[in-house]
Amino acid sequence: MDKKTENFLGIDVGGTHVKIGLVDTKGQILQFAKEITASLRENPLGFNLAFVEVVGKYLAKFPEVQHVGIGLPGLVSKDRTTTLEIPAISELNGFDLKSALLEKYPNTIFHLENDASAAAVGELHFGTGQTSQDYLFITLGTGIGSALILDGEVFKGVRGNAMEMGHMLSRGNSRLEPLIGRNGILKIAARMMDTFPEEVGQLAGQELGMHVLVGAASAGNSIALKTFAEVGEILGEAIVSTVRILDVNEIYFGGGISAALPYIMPSLDKTVHQYLSPYYLSDIKMQRATLENDAGTLGAAALCFMD
Amino acid sequence: MDKKTENFLGIDVGGTHVKIGLVDTKGQILQFAKEITASLRENPLGFNLAFVEVVGKYLAKFPEVQHVGIGLPGLVSKDRTTTLEIPAISELNGFDLKSALLEKYPNTIFHLENDASAAAVGELHFGTGQTSQDYLFITLGTGIGSALILDGEVFKGVRGNAMEMGHMLSRGNSRLEPLIGRNGILKIAARMMDTFPEEVGQLAGQELGMHVLVGAASAGNSIALKTFAEVGEILGEAIVSTVRILDVNEIYFGGGISAALPYIMPSLDKTVHQYLSPYYLSDIKMQRATLENDAGTLGAAALCFMD
Repeated sequence: MDKKTENFLGIDVGGTHVKIGLVDTKGQILQFAKEITASLRENPLGFNLAFVEVVGKYLAKFPEVQHVGIGLPGLVSKDRTTTLEIPAISELNGFDLKSALLEKYPNTIFHLENDASAAAVGELHFGTGQTSQDYLFITLGTGIGSALILDGEVFKGVRGNAMEMGHMLSRGNSRLEPLIGRNGILKIAARMMDTFPEEVGQLAGQELGMHVLVGAASAGNSIALKTFAEVGEILGEAIVSTVRILDVNEIYFGGGISAALPYIMPSLDKTVHQYLSPYYLSDIKMQRATLENDAGTLGAAALCFMD
Repeated sequence: MDKKTENFLGIDVGGTHVKIGLVDTKGQILQFAKEITASLRENPLGFNLAFVEVVGKYLAKFPEVQHVGIGLPGLVSKDRTTTLEIPAISELNGFDLKSALLEKYPNTIFHLENDASAAAVGELHFGTGQTSQDYLFITLGTGIGSALILDGEVFKGVRGNAMEMGHMLSRGNSRLEPLIGRNGILKIAARMMDTFPEEVGQLAGQELGMHVLVGAASAGNSIALKTFAEVGEILGEAIVSTVRILDVNEIYFGGGISAALPYIMPSLDKTVHQYLSPYYLSDIKMQRATLENDAGTLGAAALCFMD
């Protein structure tokens, strides 16, 4: 098999959809499909076996595929065979997924990985920016995920599941994710509207969502700008602590909310400069990841490049 | 040379003293001396060259020594040749110490390392507890240092200086070190005495120091116990975030203030159990390191076992 010319199957398992892409080695998505997670959970087989069947369906559809990468929304075993804690799909907790897949499809090579780590690997292989072999990757979306690429590989920590930045303790000992995940950001915005009613402007009467908020920020709405400034501070504080632990100075932001990065970055940058010493700040690089919406599928496919 | 039978020189460089130990491969300190850091700084040669001379003095005294380990209180280059940011001895900032030593003593092998990492390595080789090859090590003292031993080696992170937990952001965005380093703990105690004057008891009229505070805690003084309970909470919060980033479940505490661990542990343990999920808590182990006062010198000597 030649990893330079074959096509990979990238499968991004999420709480809402299971997304499947046939991806070439340059990162082009040749075919794309999605299955509804809830339907698989309601399948009489149960989610786990129904998912194994779904994989088989696409393997039959694309018989040339030899490598399948699978991104999973939670903790996986260090040997990447077993799903341990998958909050969105609890049926997967403690399931030896790799063995179940290999039992059915013994001639296929499966690469399992946490989804944030998969997205980071996607940026490494398919990103249009020039990443080095060492960077912190943070996904900003409904949840907050993170990964460290160290010497071109996923950093697993001691037991296999390093880099759960979304669970770091932040202000008032809340976890980071509820503070600046999607719902957290909307809560900040609602608080800003209560605090500064005279600045609500174009947000008045609108249903507050992330698109609305980003649009308002781009139009200069001060509630939206204050909201993203607070997000930048909180995110910056978590990055300061993470940089002190990992000594990393190249950071990419993916996920839907990274679209707001222009409004998050000023306070993020200020916070980082406030708390880090010159050693850490020299050559620090923080920017948006390049893969955007396809990061999940491409990241899963990119796992096929890894050993 | 046979690392099983030779003697090492362990040199622990600190802001107050430079401690030098001749250490056998079982961790016995055969000879011990110390030099006053301030005197070396006042030497006409300047600290850096004066230090190189001091190393030569002890190499001449112990001509059998082939390996010298040196623990340094700050940031060192990833290749462990150059001292980068050494706050307590700023002369060392950006100094290629290894080359300076090798130029003078070309037949000796020098192992440079951050001092907290050296202490962690000391526990690995000379500790009387049974460490695994993977653990977090935290020194509690005037400052807060930390290190991760990963697969039996010092985890360096991306650029060489991982594990600066003392600089993580904690409550009110203070760094951890000023909050629960020695002076921070004394501040907490002073605040507790102001808040609960009726509970001051045996602490009344005493000059507040760490020994006094530990003694009072052991006698059940409620100010001292409340103080260490708060230290445990703050330390626990930092450990929660660190565990989420490194996925480590074996933690040792060294440094002088680890003597207070019996009074810190209840709230530390409670905090960790409050914020970590079952995956992280299974088999979690937190206990005092075994080397105590000699950790600096023994840790520096233990570096000689590393490649």
